[in-house]
Amino acid sequence: MSIEVVRLDPERYAYAFGGQEPLLTVRPGTVVELSTEDCFGGAVRTVDDLPSRVCTFPYLNPVTGPIAVEGAEPGDAVAVHFVDIRPARDWAVSTTFPHFGALTATHTTAMLHDALPERVWLYDVDVDRGVCRFHARSSEFEVELPLDPMHGTVGVAPAAGEVLMSISPGAHGGNMDTPELRAGTTAYFPVNVPGALISLGDGHCRQGEGEVCGTAVEAAMSTVVVVDLVKGAAPAWPRLENDDHLMSTGSARPLEDAFRISQHDLVGWTAQLLGLDVLDAYQLVSQAGLAPAGNVVDTNYTMVAKLPKLLLGNATAYDGIHARLRETASRYLAER
Amino acid sequence: MSIEVVRLDPERYAYAFGGQEPLLTVRPGTVVELSTEDCFGGAVRTVDDLPSRVCTFPYLNPVTGPIAVEGAEPGDAVAVHFVDIRPARDWAVSTTFPHFGALTATHTTAMLHDALPERVWLYDVDVDRGVCRFHARSSEFEVELPLDPMHGTVGVAPAAGEVLMSISPGAHGGNMDTPELRAGTTAYFPVNVPGALISLGDGHCRQGEGEVCGTAVEAAMSTVVVVDLVKGAAPAWPRLENDDHLMSTGSARPLEDAFRISQHDLVGWTAQLLGLDVLDAYQLVSQAGLAPAGNVVDTNYTMVAKLPKLLLGNATAYDGIHARLRETASRYLAER
Amino acid sequence: MSIEVVRLDPERYAYAFGGQEPLLTVRPGTVVELSTEDCFGGAVRTVDDLPSRVCTFPYLNPVTGPIAVEGAEPGDAVAVHFVDIRPARDWAVSTTFPHFGALTATHTTAMLHDALPERVWLYDVDVDRGVCRFHARSSEFEVELPLDPMHGTVGVAPAAGEVLMSISPGAHGGNMDTPELRAGTTAYFPVNVPGALISLGDGHCRQGEGEVCGTAVEAAMSTVVVVDLVKGAAPAWPRLENDDHLMSTGSARPLEDAFRISQHDLVGWTAQLLGLDVLDAYQLVSQAGLAPAGNVVDTNYTMVAKLPKLLLGNATAYDGIHARLRETASRYLAER
Amino acid sequence: MSIEVVRLDPERYAYAFGGQEPLLTVRPGTVVELSTEDCFGGAVRTVDDLPSRVCTFPYLNPVTGPIAVEGAEPGDAVAVHFVDIRPARDWAVSTTFPHFGALTATHTTAMLHDALPERVWLYDVDVDRGVCRFHARSSEFEVELPLDPMHGTVGVAPAAGEVLMSISPGAHGGNMDTPELRAGTTAYFPVNVPGALISLGDGHCRQGEGEVCGTAVEAAMSTVVVVDLVKGAAPAWPRLENDDHLMSTGSARPLEDAFRISQHDLVGWTAQLLGLDVLDAYQLVSQAGLAPAGNVVDTNYTMVAKLPKLLLGNATAYDGIHARLRETASRYLAER
Repeated sequence: MSIEVVRLDPERYAYAFGGQEPLLTVRPGTVVELSTEDCFGGAVRTVDDLPSRVCTFPYLNPVTGPIAVEGAEPGDAVAVHFVDIRPARDWAVSTTFPHFGALTATHTTAMLHDALPERVWLYDVDVDRGVCRFHARSSEFEVELPLDPMHGTVGVAPAAGEVLMSISPGAHGGNMDTPELRAGTTAYFPVNVPGALISLGDGHCRQGEGEVCGTAVEAAMSTVVVVDLVKGAAPAWPRLENDDHLMSTGSARPLEDAFRISQHDLVGWTAQLLGLDVLDAYQLVSQAGLAPAGNVVDTNYTMVAKLPKLLLGNATAYDGIHARLRETASRYLAER
Repeated sequence: MSIEVVRLDPERYAYAFGGQEPLLTVRPGTVVELSTEDCFGGAVRTVDDLPSRVCTFPYLNPVTGPIAVEGAEPGDAVAVHFVDIRPARDWAVSTTFPHFGALTATHTTAMLHDALPERVWLYDVDVDRGVCRFHARSSEFEVELPLDPMHGTVGVAPAAGEVLMSISPGAHGGNMDTPELRAGTTAYFPVNVPGALISLGDGHCRQGEGEVCGTAVEAAMSTVVVVDLVKGAAPAWPRLENDDHLMSTGSARPLEDAFRISQHDLVGWTAQLLGLDVLDAYQLVSQAGLAPAGNVVDTNYTMVAKLPKLLLGNATAYDGIHARLRETASRYLAER
Repeated sequence: MSIEVVRLDPERYAYAFGGQEPLLTVRPGTVVELSTEDCFGGAVRTVDDLPSRVCTFPYLNPVTGPIAVEGAEPGDAVAVHFVDIRPARDWAVSTTFPHFGALTATHTTAMLHDALPERVWLYDVDVDRGVCRFHARSSEFEVELPLDPMHGTVGVAPAAGEVLMSISPGAHGGNMDTPELRAGTTAYFPVNVPGALISLGDGHCRQGEGEVCGTAVEAAMSTVVVVDLVKGAAPAWPRLENDDHLMSTGSARPLEDAFRISQHDLVGWTAQLLGLDVLDAYQLVSQAGLAPAGNVVDTNYTMVAKLPKLLLGNATAYDGIHARLRETASRYLAER
Repeated sequence: MSIEVVRLDPERYAYAFGGQEPLLTVRPGTVVELSTEDCFGGAVRTVDDLPSRVCTFPYLNPVTGPIAVEGAEPGDAVAVHFVDIRPARDWAVSTTFPHFGALTATHTTAMLHDALPERVWLYDVDVDRGVCRFHARSSEFEVELPLDPMHGTVGVAPAAGEVLMSISPGAHGGNMDTPELRAGTTAYFPVNVPGALISLGDGHCRQGEGEVCGTAVEAAMSTVVVVDLVKGAAPAWPRLENDDHLMSTGSARPLEDAFRISQHDLVGWTAQLLGLDVLDAYQLVSQAGLAPAGNVVDTNYTMVAKLPKLLLGNATAYDGIHARLRETASRYLAER
């Protein structure tokens, strides 16, 4: 069986989830090759390009899409499997931004302090060697960090007709900013509108857990995904799966509510997959789970709850779709 | 140089940090072999031993200690290096407990729900094979989990003359409940009173991040630590170090404040070790750091901020004391 | 000068802020007589009409509008002065709702508890006597409470093209659910789109601070407002003014961030009106301010920060517009 | 029946709740005349006395006591009725303090900002005219504020043998910093140790709700209380009563947990007094209650939940003890 491959290089980007006509409609199982711009729309290119000067609110965090999935109806799940995420340039950028970040007063954690200084860091990106290079701004210090490309933002049109800025994470996905969204991961979203209307963007060469300063190593990306559909299987919140772990996400404030959502979902998922009652699943997740921060800076904070798939025995999520998508990805990569 | 080794098998346990006379006074560099009881004082031994019946508040979470360190004065740091943590029995126990845990109404997240059911799980522990076995209570499901022994509780007498229940984590350490407190880790605490007065307990055969249901795989432990002193180097909050990572901890509510404390401390530590200004360190930690949950159930929640030591080049924390303690541990284990 | 009076009885309601064409366009200073439906769309009429059965998500919390204001441009403030709020029926209703409220597990404060029971309370409303009567459901207890009619929801189209469910409060206003939104109060909102696009609904015969169970004494209302415009005076967050107090609002989670936003805004407002530096204003607000909860149940929580106008001397907010609107209201009521 | 009156002018103050021998033991019903020092120990007397220079941590917030109550046993409630609270000097003081307050980075809401400036404000206090005068520091602005004297700190020895700094509020009371603790109010505390061990201090000439900048109009006080005992009636958290309202308090973080605790307690209290089931009481409190902030700056935040006593009909809390204590107070004041 041949793989259907389509390409999406948008002429214009979207800045929201919801309220948009699809740029593209694909059948379930289609490979989509696409390009994404960085969260600054490519406008921050030197250390002197302060984002507050070169970017115009609300035109931040452009996303590529939406992509409609044929047959996707409310109540279904769409799967987005990341095949490849490749920085498109030999540089990337990170910044502080006034009143944004985890260790600064913000517009909601409102305080009387002046904003922290706005500063830009340019990273050299070497895809072949798999590294990006950090240059300190106030001293000679430099260090190479491994590339670990990912997308901060991926999701679908929200429920209830809402139109949400692309910088917000929520039950529809969006700007979750977790490093788990790397190649090899499948993301599952609830379908809220016909076609689901998937968009993605905000590529990161790498990102620490929590995205503490508010931005990662931001880069335009050449990305390949496979898009698929699971009828009648809408999760309450975005779920992720890679070869080793099942993952539930929660995006909310305060951070303990993001944690609660993600753990609550993982407990329910575990109970369903292993035929456990909810208290037994609660116990198992409590001893075997991992709980890294995604972001602690966006309009909602994101936590991830992870369970090793080793515990599942023969049980598979969504009837083994992740393995099938991995296979599609392998065939695509072999043929490319 | 020979290693000084002392043994501590307490006749009675403490239930608080602060307000106690030391059971033992040791010189810096001393190896202490000690035994700890589980968080239920060993009273929960069958699935019918509901903790709310067999345990008496506030006699929960017994700790072994305090151990005074000669020469420790306010302003110093004491180091507790975990050499070995070995479950003392062939069983361990975990439970839900009324109004305690992350996915239940509690006395502070007060709600009108009845308590979730109280349930006990007994685990088989096989130290030789390195596993503990989970038995579901409402079905036949069983699964082995790897042993990863750790101490939920370790700390020193608090500042300001406070006496705090051993179930509370804070700037003095205490019940931080992070899986990072395993053998091979060095923990650094600020000294608040002469002698520092170190206590530890709450051994876990393993624990998921967040300790979601409120208890881990709880076990009495045979534990070996090396205790040491770094003059004038008191951290603001407990810090951890293993062979791969520097770690800062924060314990507070809401969870984002625990996150902020830990990241703020790690940024400052990184700045100091690498000679960076604080914004450059903020940037580096943002891209390279990890941020797992410790606990999201105790009176304060605990987050851990981790930085790979690979980034440090030749810089070492506290003049390389972790490596020296590792060496002491190796010699001790070789001679034992 | 005669007062312009228009009437708005919508054929259909809106369920969001943003993304709607105006039903009506008015000149600044116009009196608008309008009708609003209750938050259940009038579908809960007996104690057996459980909202989860008779209401369809997301068709909750209907609002009347939008009303466009001529000349309103981004950067301006629109003022909505409440002249009269009168319950339209001789009954009103309140309910618990599964996973909604301050003392229950919710979808974000996710827990393993079953939902609390869903229950409906019908209140008798006597506008002439100014009371509504509470009937306990599980005993014979009854008591009269004073009518204190208000609107839970009032606001404008959000910034950045967002479309937000009418049940969410935020910088655009929306479902703030504070009892301060009673007759005699002027509310100021930032204009985000041409015409501002004001909507309102969610009438309450009365409401406790915090709206603890999630709903107030919900009623359809006959309401009269005066709509006005202050060029170039957009506040960051909705502000309120009555004869006695200036009020700033903040809507966010956790609740301390809602508090911070409201206090931060009030400090800045006070500094500006009295010519104080920000620390002097911080001090004055700290000693003279009030800080009641609005709601602690909605998607964002709302706090109100109040300053007695007695402290202001001759200073007036927005050039005395509140007094002028009061005058317009008096003339309207005299002529009606 | 004559009133027993004793006097307590401590030679030294305490800085903690718990861990102290009583200075005084009184019979239930005794009037205690006492003096308290301000939260700075009287060391801040001019605008140049910056607290970080003239005060020594942890010797802040001195309290007068403890006072033991004869016959008080764990499980009982002690009542502290405030008869009179009178500023002892003709000046009072308020300050910002580095990393303390609601609109500043703190040690737990840790951020990279430098501390806000530390500033002292001196108030003129005129007890006869019932006013205190605010003087801006950076301009000529002055204004008189009404005196509304209260105690920020009052409580008993904590449970579980804990010793807690007097600056912390909790289930034992402590530094709740609510303006409701004024003359005419009765406060009820759970007894945790024999004698209860009541202490109080931190007098405020007045305080805004939330105590936003971290300190109120701080003053030494001449205070008169009546101390009483209600056998077997320990509340879970401190409760207050005045002539008009029943009040429950909650002290926790995040602020919504303080809110939840206070509302949960008030719902239970209302259910018990009116013979309602918990859902009916939840409903009644939701419509009739008030919810002002106490403090949003201390180690725990405090919220107050208030219910008008008008709703209670003939029901009285604690068998009418508040009315009896008011009577005692009247007789005392008449005879003084």
